[in-house]
Amino acid sequence: MPSKPRFGAGIWHFATYVDRYATDGYGPPVSIIEAIDRAGQVDDLSVVDLNYPFVDPTVTLDEIEVALKRNNLGVIGITPEIYNREFSKGAFTNPDAGVRRRANEVINDAADVVRRFGADYVKLWPGQDGWDYPFQVDHKSLWKMCLDGVGELASQNPDLKFVIEYKPREPRVHMSFDSVSRTLLGIEKIGLPNVGILLDFGHSLYGGESPADAAQLAIDHGRLFAIDVNDNMRGWDDDLVAGTVHPIELFEFFHTLRKNDWNGVWQLDQFPFRENSVEAANMAIDFLKAVDRGLDILDIEALRAAQERQDALGALKIAQKALFSSYR
Amino acid sequence: MPSKPRFGAGIWHFATYVDRYATDGYGPPVSIIEAIDRAGQVDDLSVVDLNYPFVDPTVTLDEIEVALKRNNLGVIGITPEIYNREFSKGAFTNPDAGVRRRANEVINDAADVVRRFGADYVKLWPGQDGWDYPFQVDHKSLWKMCLDGVGELASQNPDLKFVIEYKPREPRVHMSFDSVSRTLLGIEKIGLPNVGILLDFGHSLYGGESPADAAQLAIDHGRLFAIDVNDNMRGWDDDLVAGTVHPIELFEFFHTLRKNDWNGVWQLDQFPFRENSVEAANMAIDFLKAVDRGLDILDIEALRAAQERQDALGALKIAQKALFSSYR
Amino acid sequence: MPSKPRFGAGIWHFATYVDRYATDGYGPPVSIIEAIDRAGQVDDLSVVDLNYPFVDPTVTLDEIEVALKRNNLGVIGITPEIYNREFSKGAFTNPDAGVRRRANEVINDAADVVRRFGADYVKLWPGQDGWDYPFQVDHKSLWKMCLDGVGELASQNPDLKFVIEYKPREPRVHMSFDSVSRTLLGIEKIGLPNVGILLDFGHSLYGGESPADAAQLAIDHGRLFAIDVNDNMRGWDDDLVAGTVHPIELFEFFHTLRKNDWNGVWQLDQFPFRENSVEAANMAIDFLKAVDRGLDILDIEALRAAQERQDALGALKIAQKALFSSYR
Amino acid sequence: MPSKPRFGAGIWHFATYVDRYATDGYGPPVSIIEAIDRAGQVDDLSVVDLNYPFVDPTVTLDEIEVALKRNNLGVIGITPEIYNREFSKGAFTNPDAGVRRRANEVINDAADVVRRFGADYVKLWPGQDGWDYPFQVDHKSLWKMCLDGVGELASQNPDLKFVIEYKPREPRVHMSFDSVSRTLLGIEKIGLPNVGILLDFGHSLYGGESPADAAQLAIDHGRLFAIDVNDNMRGWDDDLVAGTVHPIELFEFFHTLRKNDWNGVWQLDQFPFRENSVEAANMAIDFLKAVDRGLDILDIEALRAAQERQDALGALKIAQKALFSSYR
Repeated sequence: MPSKPRFGAGIWHFATYVDRYATDGYGPPVSIIEAIDRAGQVDDLSVVDLNYPFVDPTVTLDEIEVALKRNNLGVIGITPEIYNREFSKGAFTNPDAGVRRRANEVINDAADVVRRFGADYVKLWPGQDGWDYPFQVDHKSLWKMCLDGVGELASQNPDLKFVIEYKPREPRVHMSFDSVSRTLLGIEKIGLPNVGILLDFGHSLYGGESPADAAQLAIDHGRLFAIDVNDNMRGWDDDLVAGTVHPIELFEFFHTLRKNDWNGVWQLDQFPFRENSVEAANMAIDFLKAVDRGLDILDIEALRAAQERQDALGALKIAQKALFSSYR
Repeated sequence: MPSKPRFGAGIWHFATYVDRYATDGYGPPVSIIEAIDRAGQVDDLSVVDLNYPFVDPTVTLDEIEVALKRNNLGVIGITPEIYNREFSKGAFTNPDAGVRRRANEVINDAADVVRRFGADYVKLWPGQDGWDYPFQVDHKSLWKMCLDGVGELASQNPDLKFVIEYKPREPRVHMSFDSVSRTLLGIEKIGLPNVGILLDFGHSLYGGESPADAAQLAIDHGRLFAIDVNDNMRGWDDDLVAGTVHPIELFEFFHTLRKNDWNGVWQLDQFPFRENSVEAANMAIDFLKAVDRGLDILDIEALRAAQERQDALGALKIAQKALFSSYR
Repeated sequence: MPSKPRFGAGIWHFATYVDRYATDGYGPPVSIIEAIDRAGQVDDLSVVDLNYPFVDPTVTLDEIEVALKRNNLGVIGITPEIYNREFSKGAFTNPDAGVRRRANEVINDAADVVRRFGADYVKLWPGQDGWDYPFQVDHKSLWKMCLDGVGELASQNPDLKFVIEYKPREPRVHMSFDSVSRTLLGIEKIGLPNVGILLDFGHSLYGGESPADAAQLAIDHGRLFAIDVNDNMRGWDDDLVAGTVHPIELFEFFHTLRKNDWNGVWQLDQFPFRENSVEAANMAIDFLKAVDRGLDILDIEALRAAQERQDALGALKIAQKALFSSYR
Repeated sequence: MPSKPRFGAGIWHFATYVDRYATDGYGPPVSIIEAIDRAGQVDDLSVVDLNYPFVDPTVTLDEIEVALKRNNLGVIGITPEIYNREFSKGAFTNPDAGVRRRANEVINDAADVVRRFGADYVKLWPGQDGWDYPFQVDHKSLWKMCLDGVGELASQNPDLKFVIEYKPREPRVHMSFDSVSRTLLGIEKIGLPNVGILLDFGHSLYGGESPADAAQLAIDHGRLFAIDVNDNMRGWDDDLVAGTVHPIELFEFFHTLRKNDWNGVWQLDQFPFRENSVEAANMAIDFLKAVDRGLDILDIEALRAAQERQDALGALKIAQKALFSSYR
């Protein structure tokens, strides 16, 4: 039986949010230190992913370290802020070469923070790289800029891993790294060993993928470096609490990971706009523990036999039984 | 031949925006006065819809009036801010009765501004009224609160019109006023003459409606009080420039309005996140003028005959010819 | 505690299917008699809904009765075939008045069969009534034809109930009766007591509704006459086995029914294209029994309190616990 | 200026259809010979794609040849029937090895017909290869079967080209070859020069791709072997007449092809369920000729400059002007 999973979360899980309507936010601003302290209140959280630069530029890395330590938290990754105002027309694909250069610098700075914290990777979240309208871009050169930008970073930092978090859209109407296949195709083109995928369950689900299939594909290409979970209504990146809407597909996702001996951190990427963030994290982790127990008792042999026959109903009954009976 | 249309826009068209990623905004903040001055630069804009309270609470109504006057702009409606932090768990449906009361006050204040400017209506944009998760709400009481809240306002202000702008979702995962039919059903239940619909073309399109059909239905119920136009990819409220993606359905929408002698203002509800807002407005209005010219030359009799046969191809050829040949 | 639910199914659940690709069908044709015998093999099925006229025109009503009797099955409704070739351009809205007349005759014939079997209702499935292209129809007259057609039937048969099964689309690109609200709006317009809704869980889900909310709305209008369940991926009417993809929303749906003392039959509308139809029905009914047991142990008071606070996470934990622990 | 495009169509464009509702079809059956004669009535059609085996097994290749000749039509491709009853659980991925073998045989037979007619390619339309339910399949082995199956064919027939027509779904709830990127990833893995993509504009559009971007990507990988056009509502493969709903994106698609000197046939894949098929083809081709004229007058330099700035509005104005003014 495999060891128990370690849980992680993006630190933004514990922040408050703005959107284009509630421009004054869904609550008072939360400093990075406060967010870390909230993360520390979650029952079973081991690591966090930190945005960089920090919202409050006066906060030092030492202060962050102290806060992490008192909450018994490690750092799994650093997410450079390449999707704010400066990069609102793109980071890797910005039409202004100077801004593209700045994106490279910001990410290289983030790489140093990865080293400082002994984190696993730099996370690239290229949400502003893409397009909004038909005819807006030359698709060939846009995609080339994406791959050149990521490839340059990977070459500059051969000691580090870079993970690309793909998503169909938002904030751009169409993101360049929109799916698991497109991202793998790009990574193969780049051809460097230190570029991989962070697969967000919800992005995959709402992009029309089967997250389990997407995970398998990324694993078979040797590129599944990290994962995030959450849930949604299949039409948008709602970032709801994991397990609340699509429990069976979440279970299939983790079954696929275990089947392939993938042992990374089970991370949360949730946006509890109107909920208590600590409660939202605990609820998700409780469900994920049920998933883990469910995998322990899943009748693997019977499932394999049903899948060999492509017997949907037979396979599903086995899965439902294992998952639901593991929920406490 | 009908008189030329008058054009309008939500004043937010000329602001800058934030979202959950670019929390520092897609540009420097724009004051309400600056936004009015930008609106004034659009070639052919007659009226604006103003959010209230104003972002800058020190701005007076007199200052607004001066700014409008120098830009030769009137006010078509006032949109009370019932979707910001205070109301992030709902305005009409907030679980806290005190907040529901506050919503009523804020909207009554907006009603006074409508009177002050001789505007046409108070616009209700209940984007936070709805739910996010299964099991979150008691649907019967939630809908009752929606209707009670709107009904109370209409009763308190019998001299004014209230328009409800429905949308499937965002910021809530599901909005209570989600479609033309649901909104009409609610309005009929309220049973007051001064409640109607503001039909946003894009909301209708992405909700899976035919905007032309939705307009006809609202007209047949005597409730089409106002309209907005824009465009999107049918999966989200992208608020793109009108005519850029779905020109034919936009043309059908205005054909339906003219056929019914509906003569209200042709308003823009666009969010040019990364574009010049004056250019975006001009581009939309140029297209809308082509639509208007297209309606002038549309072969109504031939179209009617084709529609009586439900001859899709015959009808579409007539429409394509009229619209495309009217574009300059 | 309420009495145990009775289960039903559309007889087509036990047929084989064709589509535009597998024009030779997903299996050999199944006669209506064979389908009834298959239905009889399901562990706990009480009633069926029968298409009429029968596929095989030589089969008599007496033969059907014998088959039903030997399988211990009753008839809940009759579904007149108003969506095949003759009506492929519409039944109620066909541009040819003669075809509209024929639709009326076919449905009146079906009404006689309802009487013959002592069934509950005539089911109207107006899948061909709608449009495919922009500009194809005059929306005002199309909707009028819908309401006139249904109203005429209800007037002709005041002793019988008619239920309308709405759906967003398919086979038409857009169906006129597309949503719960639109259908209720039409029914209110018709103004007769014997017209109601058959709410198909999957149609509601993929139309972007919350099925629980849709049920509540139909109940509050006194029009929820019947229901169907199944499941899908929220983008199409996949007619998968109930409970396999969206268990929580299915549970919320039945919670809403019980809360309102709605005691109709729990019917299946599944299309097991590639599965054994008896197994598919049994699997669904097993899940529905877990749903029923879950409702028995649901902590209603705690749920009500959580919903009053609109406490999504609190409410969901209560629901998850009741449902998952009831699965065997 | 490039030479005028040649137009083609799938022969099924001129057939009648069945679906799961109108099981008796949307019209009387049309023989393959009749369908060819209808194709011959289209004003400007050069080639057709033929399903094989023919619906009527008594029709000989010689008879087909005569019919083609009298209608002045060539054959661009042959589409083996690997999606009917025999293959309803998959062709390449069928759980039964014997059926997979049969699929190979059927396709090899089709390859001989390609040679017989001097056609360009064997078209693989693996609509039944995929899955319907979570947990139904082992995703690793399913994808391997896809690639092994296609690879074997390409190896067996090195003198011929094979094109894969991807689509997100239908008839399977999820197709294995679901997107341009997934298909390219698979083709790269197969590693043979004679496997490419047939890019269907509508499949791309409703899969959330930009068809122009998808075409560019396939071209950059040297794999864009063929194309199909049509239109839809972005939520399903409606196979409507090309240009009727999304004219601008269709124009961008062909702009991308011309920019890359891609000179293949402009094929129609439309399903005029309720329309006259010859009229539907003529209408599409008329629009495509407007597209072609639009490309002739498109201000390429200005467009390139706008795209370099990623100036959406500037670029779109140039495109709208060229397309709309070319419509007659």
